[in-house]
Amino acid sequence: MNKKAIVEIEELKEYLKKVEYLSSSISLLHWDSVVNMPKEAIEYRSEMIGYLTGESYKLTTSEKMKEFIDYFNGINDLDDLTKAIIENITKDYNNATKIPEAEYVQYEIDKALSQSAWEEAKKKKDFSIFKPHLAKIIAYNKKFSEYWGFAGNKYDGLLDIYEPGMTTERLDAVFGELRESLVYLLQRIKNSNVKTDDAFLKGNYSVESQRKLGETILGQIGYDYEKRGRIDISEHPFTTNFGNKDVRITTKYDTSDFRPAIFSMIHEGGHGIYEQNIPDELEGTSLGSGASMGMHESQSRFYENILGKSMEFWSYFYPKFQKTYQDLEGVDFISFYRAVNCVEPSLIRIDADELTYSLHIIIRYEMEKLLINSDIDIDDVPRLWNEKYKEYLGVEPENDADGVLQDVHWSGGDFGYFPTYALGNLYGAQIFNKLKEEIPDWNQKIYSGDFLSITKWLKENVHQYGATLKPTELIKKITGEELSAKYFIEYLNDKFGKLYGV
Amino acid sequence: MNKKAIVEIEELKEYLKKVEYLSSSISLLHWDSVVNMPKEAIEYRSEMIGYLTGESYKLTTSEKMKEFIDYFNGINDLDDLTKAIIENITKDYNNATKIPEAEYVQYEIDKALSQSAWEEAKKKKDFSIFKPHLAKIIAYNKKFSEYWGFAGNKYDGLLDIYEPGMTTERLDAVFGELRESLVYLLQRIKNSNVKTDDAFLKGNYSVESQRKLGETILGQIGYDYEKRGRIDISEHPFTTNFGNKDVRITTKYDTSDFRPAIFSMIHEGGHGIYEQNIPDELEGTSLGSGASMGMHESQSRFYENILGKSMEFWSYFYPKFQKTYQDLEGVDFISFYRAVNCVEPSLIRIDADELTYSLHIIIRYEMEKLLINSDIDIDDVPRLWNEKYKEYLGVEPENDADGVLQDVHWSGGDFGYFPTYALGNLYGAQIFNKLKEEIPDWNQKIYSGDFLSITKWLKENVHQYGATLKPTELIKKITGEELSAKYFIEYLNDKFGKLYGV
Repeated sequence: MNKKAIVEIEELKEYLKKVEYLSSSISLLHWDSVVNMPKEAIEYRSEMIGYLTGESYKLTTSEKMKEFIDYFNGINDLDDLTKAIIENITKDYNNATKIPEAEYVQYEIDKALSQSAWEEAKKKKDFSIFKPHLAKIIAYNKKFSEYWGFAGNKYDGLLDIYEPGMTTERLDAVFGELRESLVYLLQRIKNSNVKTDDAFLKGNYSVESQRKLGETILGQIGYDYEKRGRIDISEHPFTTNFGNKDVRITTKYDTSDFRPAIFSMIHEGGHGIYEQNIPDELEGTSLGSGASMGMHESQSRFYENILGKSMEFWSYFYPKFQKTYQDLEGVDFISFYRAVNCVEPSLIRIDADELTYSLHIIIRYEMEKLLINSDIDIDDVPRLWNEKYKEYLGVEPENDADGVLQDVHWSGGDFGYFPTYALGNLYGAQIFNKLKEEIPDWNQKIYSGDFLSITKWLKENVHQYGATLKPTELIKKITGEELSAKYFIEYLNDKFGKLYGV
Repeated sequence: MNKKAIVEIEELKEYLKKVEYLSSSISLLHWDSVVNMPKEAIEYRSEMIGYLTGESYKLTTSEKMKEFIDYFNGINDLDDLTKAIIENITKDYNNATKIPEAEYVQYEIDKALSQSAWEEAKKKKDFSIFKPHLAKIIAYNKKFSEYWGFAGNKYDGLLDIYEPGMTTERLDAVFGELRESLVYLLQRIKNSNVKTDDAFLKGNYSVESQRKLGETILGQIGYDYEKRGRIDISEHPFTTNFGNKDVRITTKYDTSDFRPAIFSMIHEGGHGIYEQNIPDELEGTSLGSGASMGMHESQSRFYENILGKSMEFWSYFYPKFQKTYQDLEGVDFISFYRAVNCVEPSLIRIDADELTYSLHIIIRYEMEKLLINSDIDIDDVPRLWNEKYKEYLGVEPENDADGVLQDVHWSGGDFGYFPTYALGNLYGAQIFNKLKEEIPDWNQKIYSGDFLSITKWLKENVHQYGATLKPTELIKKITGEELSAKYFIEYLNDKFGKLYGV
């Protein structure tokens, strides 16, 4: 690169820092609004967020940004990092600018209406209230995808927002394989003589004790909740961060069951570890975060399920739980381990167990493909949804609130987002398979409470890259292979085969 | 006004809303940084705040702002509200733009250095470390005041930032009168046979119980800490707000003494009530806050001292305290009341009692006048400080940390700020005098726990005006008189005269 290019890079980085200051501010305003904000402040807070979002939009779509993009796209000998930055900002620029402004403004207004219609529809268990809004939001998303150059397969354009490079073709293959295996495994479990019960886990678990146990676990797996993070309470657990030194998670406590809080803390802790492990050099470059939604989810689900619901993990932590909770004193380890891994097909995604969860996602993926890539009658949506639940999970919603209306995503226009949850499971198991090869005594380590060796491996092999690599490149770099459903299927068959004797 | 002017007013209001969104965001970033933020995030947080502050500066000093100012200053028939807005933004614009940008940037850098030098100096109890920085900061402030057009009396220019319209001439008169009365009253108290003791108040007060009692008091005096506010913990108690529906206070608990938390909650609650009572119409106009620092302080000090340390207040609340704290069971009401109002000249401003507090302020006022308006030798500062403490309060610092280095203000360039604390006492007593006239049974109301009648009166007579009136205009509107030291002196003579039999 010539001198001018080097100067320009520094200028670009200064510019991108501003974008990051704004997005961090917006994230804090949002975090505060669900964790701390007094109720009556909601309107003013929305205005504040709206204003900063507009300013952020201005920066990412400015003439200056266009100049950077044009300049650097004309240079051939860019270093890898700069190349990745340019690719990233070019995509953001195009995604934002290819939609006519007036159309985007109208979309934002229609989304707000759609979200309140969805809330009302869910409350009244009546899809017809949400239907016209859903149709509108779908029409927008189809159009946007066309603007972005995905006229042939519009759903690919939406997938690409959350999982760069992911395609319907690839997902059809891996989700198809996964679905078949899951449905078959679930069938065998249903027919198994082994019945599980988790009712005895209900008890009396104080918030304070859950918080303390959660902190102990988080500290040992490597999430710093003191100097570089914190744990708060919110209605829906989530992770947010402002740089890599302020990475916050939230949870929600149920005093009759420790599982919601403990497992959501481990899940969010997984997201948090990823963000805390992003190298300082990537901060403020637009690449200082996870590689994709799916890759992020691979970490949260790895910690929550593969690690956090494993026999090795609980053989280490269960004695601590028994010491804390008298109700668990008489419960032997195996009963406890079985209860934590109880399989029970259900209607609601967010309550699903480790095995059936991906089927909930695959149903949504198939529905979204139909909605975006086919011209199905919107009236058929609830019926199709219910049929799929019947076919894959063997359960059927009695009303739309427990069915097609259960999730907020569609009302907010987030088509293409759901698949990342199941992708997280696939990436997670595939990465875990590699980890086991490279740390042959991984289970000894977990048995003895040495989770940091695991986290260290993940830092070196996953986290340290931030978003410098696309998820497709990253999974290959880590495991030497393309994304595959094989490892997750093997993992589930092995784990639940043993649990249910099938 | 013509049509164009009406359209322009709407445009201006839209513009000012943006300024407010930014300043609210900056306030939230700051609040979060002292209440929630993990330690290692400090550097990035400063960068975020720096960026948004720069953006806010750009808006308040923009060409667009200049156009608004020029346009509206050329119109004669503006309504009162618009007139007040224009006056306000014109002043902010001038204050910001009259300082050459390079000089202001250098000032910010020098302030940062000055603040860390002050920290070190205080830790090492050595004024000489801070001395050269103090000299620099003073030089800047003198120059800025000249830029603003206060070449004759430079200190007036600094006063005007915090207390619009206030002058050295006026302060010399009221503070002079106040000082003489206070020194004389204090002398008589020292010679009195009545000795007070508050050692028995030390005990065991759980954070939770203090929080609960604080909430009870705050709820009854009319600070909404649930739907439009919240109470958190920070090293130094403060109030911050983002609009009138999100007004937050902080406090700090000492489990051996309930006074720091309870009285700081009442004090900050006073600030909070003021901000919560600002009318919606003033939000986002640049006038949607208190009239001045002094007027704000009048409310916090009214609630903390005049109300919160009165016999009537405690005759209502003391039984509740006795029920909560066993240690207080055997303490009769009068001993308790005396202990809460114990007078004891001391070295540290923030620990001072109601009576001596203003003397600490007057000393700072006199020092600041010397530093800004005279050419005193900076080497003489500690000596002059100590001499004043000896003369007015009868105590003398053993080192500079307990003397001239105790406050952060000067290191941050906040000259002209201190007087507002004592002005708050004067305004407060003068307003209280009027309140007593208009609510003759005010003490019956307080005895019976009806604090809301008092707050309602303050809302109607003080809070509802926001910053539409200058403090000089507001005090006249409320009381029919100019600012006077008389009422505060009468109040103190009466209260402490009775307490000490003098």
